[in-house]
Amino acid sequence: MNAPDPHPIVQAMRPVPSAMLDALRARFGERCSTAQAVREQHGRDESVYPMMPPEVVVFCESTDDVAAVVKLADLHEVPVIPFGVGSSVEGHLLAIQGGVSIDLSRMDKVLAVHPEDLTVTVQPGVTREQLNREIRDTGLFFPIDPGANASIGGMSATRASGTNAVRYGTMRENVLALQVVTASGDIIRTGTRAKKSSAGYDLTRLYVGSEGTLGVMTEITLKLYPLPEAVSAAICQFPSVDAAVRATIQIIQMGVPIARCELLDANAVRAVNKHDKLNLQESPMLLMEFHGSESGVKEQAETVQEIAKEFGGTDFQWATTPEERTRLWTARHHAYFAAVQTRPGCRCQAGDVCVPISRLAECIDAAMSDSEAHGVPYWIVGHVGDGNFHLSWLLDPNDAAEAQRVEELNVRMVQRAQQMEGTCTGEHGVGLHKMPYLLGEHGEGAMAVMRSLKRALDPKNIMNPGKMLAL
Amino acid sequence: MNAPDPHPIVQAMRPVPSAMLDALRARFGERCSTAQAVREQHGRDESVYPMMPPEVVVFCESTDDVAAVVKLADLHEVPVIPFGVGSSVEGHLLAIQGGVSIDLSRMDKVLAVHPEDLTVTVQPGVTREQLNREIRDTGLFFPIDPGANASIGGMSATRASGTNAVRYGTMRENVLALQVVTASGDIIRTGTRAKKSSAGYDLTRLYVGSEGTLGVMTEITLKLYPLPEAVSAAICQFPSVDAAVRATIQIIQMGVPIARCELLDANAVRAVNKHDKLNLQESPMLLMEFHGSESGVKEQAETVQEIAKEFGGTDFQWATTPEERTRLWTARHHAYFAAVQTRPGCRCQAGDVCVPISRLAECIDAAMSDSEAHGVPYWIVGHVGDGNFHLSWLLDPNDAAEAQRVEELNVRMVQRAQQMEGTCTGEHGVGLHKMPYLLGEHGEGAMAVMRSLKRALDPKNIMNPGKMLAL
Repeated sequence: MNAPDPHPIVQAMRPVPSAMLDALRARFGERCSTAQAVREQHGRDESVYPMMPPEVVVFCESTDDVAAVVKLADLHEVPVIPFGVGSSVEGHLLAIQGGVSIDLSRMDKVLAVHPEDLTVTVQPGVTREQLNREIRDTGLFFPIDPGANASIGGMSATRASGTNAVRYGTMRENVLALQVVTASGDIIRTGTRAKKSSAGYDLTRLYVGSEGTLGVMTEITLKLYPLPEAVSAAICQFPSVDAAVRATIQIIQMGVPIARCELLDANAVRAVNKHDKLNLQESPMLLMEFHGSESGVKEQAETVQEIAKEFGGTDFQWATTPEERTRLWTARHHAYFAAVQTRPGCRCQAGDVCVPISRLAECIDAAMSDSEAHGVPYWIVGHVGDGNFHLSWLLDPNDAAEAQRVEELNVRMVQRAQQMEGTCTGEHGVGLHKMPYLLGEHGEGAMAVMRSLKRALDPKNIMNPGKMLAL
Repeated sequence: MNAPDPHPIVQAMRPVPSAMLDALRARFGERCSTAQAVREQHGRDESVYPMMPPEVVVFCESTDDVAAVVKLADLHEVPVIPFGVGSSVEGHLLAIQGGVSIDLSRMDKVLAVHPEDLTVTVQPGVTREQLNREIRDTGLFFPIDPGANASIGGMSATRASGTNAVRYGTMRENVLALQVVTASGDIIRTGTRAKKSSAGYDLTRLYVGSEGTLGVMTEITLKLYPLPEAVSAAICQFPSVDAAVRATIQIIQMGVPIARCELLDANAVRAVNKHDKLNLQESPMLLMEFHGSESGVKEQAETVQEIAKEFGGTDFQWATTPEERTRLWTARHHAYFAAVQTRPGCRCQAGDVCVPISRLAECIDAAMSDSEAHGVPYWIVGHVGDGNFHLSWLLDPNDAAEAQRVEELNVRMVQRAQQMEGTCTGEHGVGLHKMPYLLGEHGEGAMAVMRSLKRALDPKNIMNPGKMLAL
């Protein structure tokens, strides 16, 4: 496969007719905006693509608001793009066919906490940090942490995961039930608050990860977890990325219930050292966290220390106080911004492949060698406990040849991952950027099934059209 | 809602034309059978329904075999019903519109074990006991255990769970990837062996739990788990079902990673005592299992013992040797047969509701009072750690009035569970028996979405037609 054009093909625009605009203004007043600045803010995300603003932005405050917008969009066959906080890295939010951006950020209420059932129901605009702040008194927490302070709606739509997934699973495992506005503007419910069910097709998991292409999620019921009695974090340096990854593989295969197991390569460590004024040894590093009882955490840590030593890991450096832990994880979460600052004016393009863990060392190694050979600056962080890593390139936005070269590196990394029975995206989603890779991963048969689903549930192709699936 | 007719309405038959029969015989020879005994064996299951045999049974030995049958069925618009071991309890296997039963029991190969990745790929006819036997040397196990020695295909098709789900999840969480023969006879793959993915619609979870109504699973890739270093099982008697359930709720809310937490009411204990020649105290009982490290198991058990004591639980009786554990769990798994023997000639109708755990005590209590008031013998086992229980009635198969009364009890139990934000089926699936309850659970909107999916993926309605969804 040739590298795809790193910029999306601008598709045929589907203009918002004035009758629809009038109807939106009549209902939403100032909450319906066509101001240039507002449109531009809703026409970009953290992806490599240039801005493509929607024609109009509607700030919804209720499910009925969302249903009203979608009913109009259905009537006029106009695209609809749900918008949370804009942290997509794959171009999900770009209005490549024009249309309406539905801003959900004002739907930011935690609707119902059921601590006794370990569930919470939220509106889609609630961010994960806000959620954890608001439920702090319950002794529970929502573990899924993709780094960015994303909205729960966006995280559900992309099937996000992040640093805690190795222990707590992804959004796939942690969304129990949904309220969804369908492509016809109907309001439906999927799932229940029961922990499990065999009652019909699993619509919840069909919408989770559907990237706004099947409907707009307006309520999300999540699993919560008791805050662990004890938490400890540690870092451990390794002589090579390979050694760190092999230690991780061993940890997982032994069944250690590690809560976080993150790789940073030397480039990433160097960047966060500078950005966060830390003085970590600039070599490949695992940043780990253990959750459990006091003795359980101790036991896990001992096992992991032994494994690390086998693979040439140095002694652990512990971060036992909450402040130290926060400092380390904040640094980890800043890695993206820290890395971007190492090449002034650059744009960052993040890979996101995920492979069966036995192939992880080989997959990372090949991607590193390939990148070294091409001389494009890169850095790596990885949720290596899940077999998922982000090798990210720092490229000059004005150098089309470099962009093309990076895309070629990315294509090869994706194809390698797929040949290893892995996936082109562990957690960022398809958006625009990963569309060319789906066929190689799923084959024509499964792609045909996906297209059938899309056509069945969105016959006018108005829900985030042109994303994920080419029809 | 009135109680549905406990017997299914026989639907319009869709005869297998002689051209199709000839084609099947030409390809499959003796593996294509129209013998009365074979048809009858494939026209019943463990449900309350009378036998409804298919017109022909084909014993498939490969994915290509399955595809060939489905292609013929597609051509002739004839129903197709996948058959594993016949352990459905909700009527999934009955040929209510006639057609072809695809017997998958000869597709019983473990195709690939990847111990380093904690995955295994199997054919659908592999049973769970067989799987665990065949992978024993790897130090890994597949925990999902619905009691019956069901086929992995059947367990996937009904989104089964069982005793270990409280810790390890259900088939929903444990199927990573599938090979499926679609309604047009095409062979597709869904998912990968990577632990997570955001690459498109979650087809794997759409087929898991679809009860043969969208396609036939021909390969299933599952997660495996390291055998725990230490396992211990214990029983604890309680003064009432309510006390046992309240103790369970507390255990779950505390976040104890208990591996199994099963309720047996006094009726169930009495039955297994007789059947398995045990002398358990005949009062409500929790049968528990703890997995972990030696010290972890000890710690869990201590916490649980304290909780149990609070709710009037007696001292634990431990089963530390594998033999003792096996004896207890075998007794638990025999509960169904044991209970059936307490009323000679009876038929057992099992409820399967699941509710948010905070409502569990109330839900069980109401169902018990209701059953007591109606005087139909019943017994209870429950995967109470998940909020799921089976209150099952023992009824006279020749007493239509009793059958009607039991169905009324069941309707009320289901409606109560749904009002508590729970589900009509925690793990048995919809089949024929739960169809009348889906609307109350999902609402018309979600039902319309499910029907759209069915029509999109099975336009001729040949895949296990008349089950799960009324079109």
